[in-house]
Amino acid sequence: MTLQPPEVRRLSFNQATAERASLGEVVESCARHGISNVGIWRHKLAETGVAAAVKLVRDAGINVSSVCRGGMFPASTDVARRERIDDNFRAIDDAAALGAEVLVLVCGAAPDRDISGARAMVRDGIAAIASHAAERGVKLGIEPLHPAFAAERSCITTLREARLLAERFDPRVVGVVVDVYHVWWDPERTDEIQWLGDRIVGYHVNDWLVPARDVLMGRGMMGDGVIDLRGIRAEIERASYRGPIEVEIFNEQIWAMPTDDIVRLTKERFTACA
Amino acid sequence: MTLQPPEVRRLSFNQATAERASLGEVVESCARHGISNVGIWRHKLAETGVAAAVKLVRDAGINVSSVCRGGMFPASTDVARRERIDDNFRAIDDAAALGAEVLVLVCGAAPDRDISGARAMVRDGIAAIASHAAERGVKLGIEPLHPAFAAERSCITTLREARLLAERFDPRVVGVVVDVYHVWWDPERTDEIQWLGDRIVGYHVNDWLVPARDVLMGRGMMGDGVIDLRGIRAEIERASYRGPIEVEIFNEQIWAMPTDDIVRLTKERFTACA
Repeated sequence: MTLQPPEVRRLSFNQATAERASLGEVVESCARHGISNVGIWRHKLAETGVAAAVKLVRDAGINVSSVCRGGMFPASTDVARRERIDDNFRAIDDAAALGAEVLVLVCGAAPDRDISGARAMVRDGIAAIASHAAERGVKLGIEPLHPAFAAERSCITTLREARLLAERFDPRVVGVVVDVYHVWWDPERTDEIQWLGDRIVGYHVNDWLVPARDVLMGRGMMGDGVIDLRGIRAEIERASYRGPIEVEIFNEQIWAMPTDDIVRLTKERFTACA
Repeated sequence: MTLQPPEVRRLSFNQATAERASLGEVVESCARHGISNVGIWRHKLAETGVAAAVKLVRDAGINVSSVCRGGMFPASTDVARRERIDDNFRAIDDAAALGAEVLVLVCGAAPDRDISGARAMVRDGIAAIASHAAERGVKLGIEPLHPAFAAERSCITTLREARLLAERFDPRVVGVVVDVYHVWWDPERTDEIQWLGDRIVGYHVNDWLVPARDVLMGRGMMGDGVIDLRGIRAEIERASYRGPIEVEIFNEQIWAMPTDDIVRLTKERFTACA
């Protein structure tokens, strides 16, 4: 059975794909191109202000599929860890104000050579914020990051690890965000996506470019790389995920394009390749 | 119990750490510094010639701990796959001539968007060369590579995948090479190293630098990065591995140093950090 292209109504434009644009510019361009979901980053939200952002998306009739990011739990002192927790409370409040379905958790790296210790801090961190998220009606989406980011962004690297972590918590509150860039290589990907089932609270698409050298800024537009996007989407659909499909691409060349061109290209490639 | 520094007699200097030097220069410098093992790369072997290389290491009383690399099995046509197999036969013969304990297998990437297909070609490839390796008395060491290399060098990325693949074959012929750079982040690393036990046929040390951007050329000298080297060596020792510990570092800044300085620094850091 050939998988059909995804419906455009499921496309969510994550504003990190047009990092140079303001939230207002992104929302305006998405509305013009019939894109009904956006993903919002907190550093961009800080530029716009939460109240103004809420008005922007409401006036445009745009749904906020996710807010990035919470997490970053590990730190070397109790005080610093407490500050991270407090920041996560604010992130949950921001997500709730925007009506976002999910706060994406980039869990944080090890503060020293102790990755097991960092993982314990992540577990404790999620435990400390889960009830606040439940009260605000925001789901926490643990995003396993590519192992190349283990030392700087996330000690949680595989779908299995993210699933086992999520399973410690109420499935109505804590789930997993699957981003193809981070998990395409995983030999257990197909099984893990199936086992995740309705723990999947977000699905992100982009591509892995070859040759890969700069893993942070080398993400590609769908179709420009080596990821079997249709194959992974088939797995995601079999797991019954029916939510937004978010396009999040960190790439200087794409960032240099006019916002409207980025949004147009994203929509084209979403239909052709995702 | 504090782990003691490794004995210098276990140090193997992989010549890729001094890529600009000839094999002769590396062997001479190692002999001068009391290093009794080297790892040899085939492109450098081709420069020197196999017979001359054999004489070089014998005259210096140096043991060849490994030859890099066999593998690279996946290809898009039958003819190309057959050529890869033939090249692996030659690599096994080279390793046997040098008295090397192990031929390291960098298994190869997917020729297209089908990573499962590539993995099947790797299984078939190892099956096609295992009896030749057994006849020549050379062990095949499957080296799982960091997932950042999945699209270009190895579709075999995790210790678990490498172990399950090795377990299809005779343990006297096919084992696994553990390189800290490739596996330090793996949440199942500790268990997998234990389960590997005497399937471990090589242990490579270096370090993961922060910030990491260039994953190919950004490897660091032991002590310069974030890997818990003593912790991983404790796991390796618990798995009863007592063989050479090889230092393999791809790093332009290190390559720019005089060969003798690289060898001296390698020995110092090996004792201080490995």
